[in-house]
Amino acid sequence: MMSAKLKLTTPDKYTALNPQTVCTYLGCLQALKGLLGGTTSEWTAKEVGDGNLNLVFIVEGPKSAVVVKQALPYVRMVGDSWPLPLDRAYYEYYALVEQGQHASGFVPEIYHHDHDMALTVMEYLSPHIILRKGLIQGICYPQMAKHIGKFLAHTLFNTSDLALDPVTKRKKMAQYLTNTAMCKISEDLIFDEPYYAAPMNRHTAPQLDDIALKFRQDTALKLAVQELKNKFLNNAEALLHGDLHTGSVMVTQNDTRVIDPEFAFFGPMGFDIGAFLANLFMAYFSKEPGENSQWILKQPQIVWDTFVEEFTVLWNSPKNGELYNSRLYVDAPALKEAALKARLESIFGDALGFAGCKIIRRILGLAHVEDFESIENKDVRAMRERKALEFGRRLILERSNFKTIVDVLKAV
Amino acid sequence: MMSAKLKLTTPDKYTALNPQTVCTYLGCLQALKGLLGGTTSEWTAKEVGDGNLNLVFIVEGPKSAVVVKQALPYVRMVGDSWPLPLDRAYYEYYALVEQGQHASGFVPEIYHHDHDMALTVMEYLSPHIILRKGLIQGICYPQMAKHIGKFLAHTLFNTSDLALDPVTKRKKMAQYLTNTAMCKISEDLIFDEPYYAAPMNRHTAPQLDDIALKFRQDTALKLAVQELKNKFLNNAEALLHGDLHTGSVMVTQNDTRVIDPEFAFFGPMGFDIGAFLANLFMAYFSKEPGENSQWILKQPQIVWDTFVEEFTVLWNSPKNGELYNSRLYVDAPALKEAALKARLESIFGDALGFAGCKIIRRILGLAHVEDFESIENKDVRAMRERKALEFGRRLILERSNFKTIVDVLKAV
Repeated sequence: MMSAKLKLTTPDKYTALNPQTVCTYLGCLQALKGLLGGTTSEWTAKEVGDGNLNLVFIVEGPKSAVVVKQALPYVRMVGDSWPLPLDRAYYEYYALVEQGQHASGFVPEIYHHDHDMALTVMEYLSPHIILRKGLIQGICYPQMAKHIGKFLAHTLFNTSDLALDPVTKRKKMAQYLTNTAMCKISEDLIFDEPYYAAPMNRHTAPQLDDIALKFRQDTALKLAVQELKNKFLNNAEALLHGDLHTGSVMVTQNDTRVIDPEFAFFGPMGFDIGAFLANLFMAYFSKEPGENSQWILKQPQIVWDTFVEEFTVLWNSPKNGELYNSRLYVDAPALKEAALKARLESIFGDALGFAGCKIIRRILGLAHVEDFESIENKDVRAMRERKALEFGRRLILERSNFKTIVDVLKAV
Repeated sequence: MMSAKLKLTTPDKYTALNPQTVCTYLGCLQALKGLLGGTTSEWTAKEVGDGNLNLVFIVEGPKSAVVVKQALPYVRMVGDSWPLPLDRAYYEYYALVEQGQHASGFVPEIYHHDHDMALTVMEYLSPHIILRKGLIQGICYPQMAKHIGKFLAHTLFNTSDLALDPVTKRKKMAQYLTNTAMCKISEDLIFDEPYYAAPMNRHTAPQLDDIALKFRQDTALKLAVQELKNKFLNNAEALLHGDLHTGSVMVTQNDTRVIDPEFAFFGPMGFDIGAFLANLFMAYFSKEPGENSQWILKQPQIVWDTFVEEFTVLWNSPKNGELYNSRLYVDAPALKEAALKARLESIFGDALGFAGCKIIRRILGLAHVEDFESIENKDVRAMRERKALEFGRRLILERSNFKTIVDVLKAV
């Protein structure tokens, strides 16, 4: 876990805002004044941060509304005994800007960033709701899976050696290499803690006591998870969102926006894809059959197929990345197609493995998901969680046996 | 290739030294004056750089001698039409210091580093000679393979997530992430150019024309090489020497020193191991049977076995690396052994693949090795090079089929 001994200092110019001071703050920014309209006294602000880490304000003026997101120097859900550096606000900002360049329309618009205040002002998305909440309510989103597939293909391809020269790539990498505090949360909570008796672990007890213990004793599973952790630590393929679950996506029927990339770092492409697939699978497993579960079960295939389709278009476009120099195709034209196939297979296998890790950590680790948590009957919840756990384990151990997403869906 | 358009500026305080000015330069450094003894006028200096990139002076005083290595702002063997940044001297210095901490006695001692002058003063190794030259002369070095195995295990393990916490690891990574010019040389010359009709390629012609063309048309081979390039670019496992061939090792019968880590960067462990094995294999293939080739053929196994032995000792010592947290072993004690085995298998496969790449690039690419170049009869040379090429191709394509180093040696 994060060391509680870590002392954090905040910059002199940092103050955590409240609904009053956030208006004063925005009132000093000419562009924001114009956007919101009227005068400061006409604005209303409320704090809506239901997440774990930050302050989030919605500020409304006569003309429009904006969101102000400010990092706190500790984990909000735990308190100042768990300090967390403010710089995550900068990584989030950098990542939003980078992703906006590659997947425009799939991230919120950014209006202002203040480094010292660890604060970003961005588009107020309305009438969007958090995808996870929509799924729990049984709402279907016809465009969502396609949009996420596109977002993944464009952000991942364009920040990898497939699109970038190595100087640019390494410069970008260096920018995120200091996002160690956020990476450490993933390193601990996803890959380690669910697999030993960590003090902050929890699970639906006593119903899942047996499987929690079985997983802690499962050498093959733990070995595979550590090999995936090795990839997470070392395989800097592309700029990842780093926490792409259904709580990091806001939706309407036709619009999809990916938010909160404060875990951004250069890692394996399959990590982002797997995170999203895992959360769709958990949404499915958490449902009563006959709810919108059949619709949910179709979405992983749409995400993956769209990813493949868009990735293939990018692959076949003229590009200047360091990998697969086009001169190599001159004497071996079949290489172009073969290399694409090999890359996609590798990403697919990684995605399944990471998806399995993401499922397990949400049921046996510290941070759970509302999909399961909202099931009040503990026996029902445990039964569904158990199915998800067993599926997660299969994804990790048999990831190289699943050749297509259809194979995976059969296993569900 | 490196872009010849790149304009390089040198720091104001940089001047390339010559045998006269190097003495004046050292004369201003109190510690060096003491080391060399006497006064500047009693010192002699000669320039001995037979490499491709740098100035190397041996300066002798009444008491002892030192080596002064200074980077030039271009590739020496090509001239100022191929500029190369001076900062490689800094990476070399950093790497020598880091390696010295983990594998003390296997690198030269460092006396002084001057950032602006891109210059390092180090131990004069005598009566050491370059290992490659010794092998060509038919000399056997009874300790060399064991020493290199040790050097590899200690430098690679101790700069990886097996030994380091992620903050320290990423700080070290960041230090080398800007060594892009040197990495680009490897990216181009090892993984790309031998596989297309690059203008600077050369091979023993016309004898090898057919196999050079065959390799350029070999989709499976090129695909595997690009997958290895992907690992080279993205798999930042450990701090590598980056150019560990037999020309980067100085030896006597009982002493072994690894020099010239100016290609240092964080990459896959197998790259350094493979580079060294490849150069031993080339030494073997270049020989007349009955010369010291049987002795040479025994060395790869000693290198690998020693690496495994030392790596295992480090694995079983108390360690604080991010990977394989010891708490994971509590409920699954078999994991410790299983994880070691999996790591070693992965490193071994990588090493064989990179070894294959290194062999091919030295026969079909720009930079060749004296082992083959010194064979004057072109038919004999081509015959031996062809065997090495075919072996290199097998290493790359069948690397996962070779289970032990003994299997590999049978294939030789």
